[in-house]
Amino acid sequence: MPEVRKDPITGGWVIISTDRAHRPHDFRRASTVQVGGFCPFCYGNEDKTPPEILAYRENGNHTPNSQGWLLRVVPNKFPALQIEGDMGRMGEGLYDKMNGIGAHEIIIETPHHDRTIPTMTDSEVESMFWAYRDRLIDLKRDRRFRYILIFKNHGEAAGASLEHSHSQLIALPIVPSKVREEVEGSKRYYDLKERCIYCDIIRQELDDGVRVITENQDFVAVAPYAPRFPFETWILPKHHESSYEESLRLEYKNLARITKDVLGRLDKALENPPYNMIVHTSPIAEVHNDYYHWHIEIMPTLTRVAGFEWGTGFYINPTPPEEAAKFMREIVE
Amino acid sequence: MPEVRKDPITGGWVIISTDRAHRPHDFRRASTVQVGGFCPFCYGNEDKTPPEILAYRENGNHTPNSQGWLLRVVPNKFPALQIEGDMGRMGEGLYDKMNGIGAHEIIIETPHHDRTIPTMTDSEVESMFWAYRDRLIDLKRDRRFRYILIFKNHGEAAGASLEHSHSQLIALPIVPSKVREEVEGSKRYYDLKERCIYCDIIRQELDDGVRVITENQDFVAVAPYAPRFPFETWILPKHHESSYEESLRLEYKNLARITKDVLGRLDKALENPPYNMIVHTSPIAEVHNDYYHWHIEIMPTLTRVAGFEWGTGFYINPTPPEEAAKFMREIVE
Repeated sequence: MPEVRKDPITGGWVIISTDRAHRPHDFRRASTVQVGGFCPFCYGNEDKTPPEILAYRENGNHTPNSQGWLLRVVPNKFPALQIEGDMGRMGEGLYDKMNGIGAHEIIIETPHHDRTIPTMTDSEVESMFWAYRDRLIDLKRDRRFRYILIFKNHGEAAGASLEHSHSQLIALPIVPSKVREEVEGSKRYYDLKERCIYCDIIRQELDDGVRVITENQDFVAVAPYAPRFPFETWILPKHHESSYEESLRLEYKNLARITKDVLGRLDKALENPPYNMIVHTSPIAEVHNDYYHWHIEIMPTLTRVAGFEWGTGFYINPTPPEEAAKFMREIVE
Repeated sequence: MPEVRKDPITGGWVIISTDRAHRPHDFRRASTVQVGGFCPFCYGNEDKTPPEILAYRENGNHTPNSQGWLLRVVPNKFPALQIEGDMGRMGEGLYDKMNGIGAHEIIIETPHHDRTIPTMTDSEVESMFWAYRDRLIDLKRDRRFRYILIFKNHGEAAGASLEHSHSQLIALPIVPSKVREEVEGSKRYYDLKERCIYCDIIRQELDDGVRVITENQDFVAVAPYAPRFPFETWILPKHHESSYEESLRLEYKNLARITKDVLGRLDKALENPPYNMIVHTSPIAEVHNDYYHWHIEIMPTLTRVAGFEWGTGFYINPTPPEEAAKFMREIVE
């Protein structure tokens, strides 16, 4: 059972993931990525993952864990948290810890080993976003969970340990500090103005235009005003919606289109960079609200986080977002 | 002039460092390190850095910017912040920004290109710690500054862009969020217990022993209870002292000894890993206090920060600190 420990000074949580098979001796360098060779996410290897939780299949084929699927959701074989058990909160002298309870799932987005989001079909990318929604709806029913994080690590430098395109979902028994910080920040603005800060940002950005990358009927992609990283990109729904899973059917289609578009432009601008993509949505207990606005953040892994960032929490970004957005806008598809 | 922008939701600050010479086109990948060839930090190249702010020299030689120095402090040639100017706080629609005012200095720790802290002499490492103190004392007099961060990036993966051993100092016009968080956390504990939390941690750790790596008369090195990274190590002064620069003369000697010892053990355990070393000390306005306890944190760069960490602020650490400490303790010097 992994252990969740609290830093006694800052209150930050750390998952001490003893089941993840690393021991000091294995720790010479960051683990490397399997490239080529055997892939547990390809057709025919369905028995090399834990049994599937959800799959989308062609009409007519309904046998679980067989080939013919279009998208597959499976438990992570090396989960950071475990689904069975209770919280087991306890002290250790002045320290606090609890059991590492949570869900850790993998969304295998396509059966095609070599496809990335920009090279997947529109319908594959849309299915990925539907799977995010379906898993959120299901896991919200588990009363132990307070937050569900969905994210994607693409490329070795961004933390992906398998090449085959996949997303991850982690359900947590606490609302993480980063989420709390964003939700509280939005709430403060709402208390002051009685408007959603993201709605105000979207209005100002569409008006200015200088940080807009692309848009469609339902979404706008912008370089944020204070990006931590070069080419950081946010995709925001134009209409106020606090939770990802509450979007309308047509919105998932337009979300797929703009995500493919943005990641395609990033691939051209930066020669297929590694990146992290994170769904930012409301905590489970606050699904419907007027202050928080769900969105997606994409952060290419181009610079390194070093002593200054660790020591301050400030970021140094050598690329103004206005220049990044202009560069991205001018890419011809 | 670099621009400091505030994230309107979280309040986090970002330095948009337009003077750092990177433009979108240069941004294919993280910049690489100069290895071999010309080094601006070696003897004879004193005119390739901005003029020195401080130097320790052998007796008899007092010509600034000439050879014969033992340690040299110079302004960063590519500073993240600029020393001249006023804060220039202003709005931009709903956004906030200010001028990037601050000091950014480089401490060249040794004239020897190939030495690292474990292979420097005791006196070189002690001089490095004296230089940290001397620059803190001097920069605290500038009323614009609220916090002075001293850190060291060692190795390319930890963000070092030059090989020759050096530390960095950044003086900031605001107390950064990470520092605020630690100081506030310590204060909350002090309000509750009327004891310094770090003093309590040191007592509990010396008593338990299981996370202690090494100690001397004045300092103890431990693997913290909730480490974010494998082999994260903290060096703490045994006696309560809120600010780095207030330590006694003998303490800098013992700090040099334990730092050499710890980094030497890390080099053996992990085959010369890249690392970040950060001095954690009180904000300028709170130099003397009973709640905060200065210390040094060392974080080897072994794992990658990925989507989960960015999305939550939680860390997943596959190495229990008890195992890391045991491994480090058992290394024979």
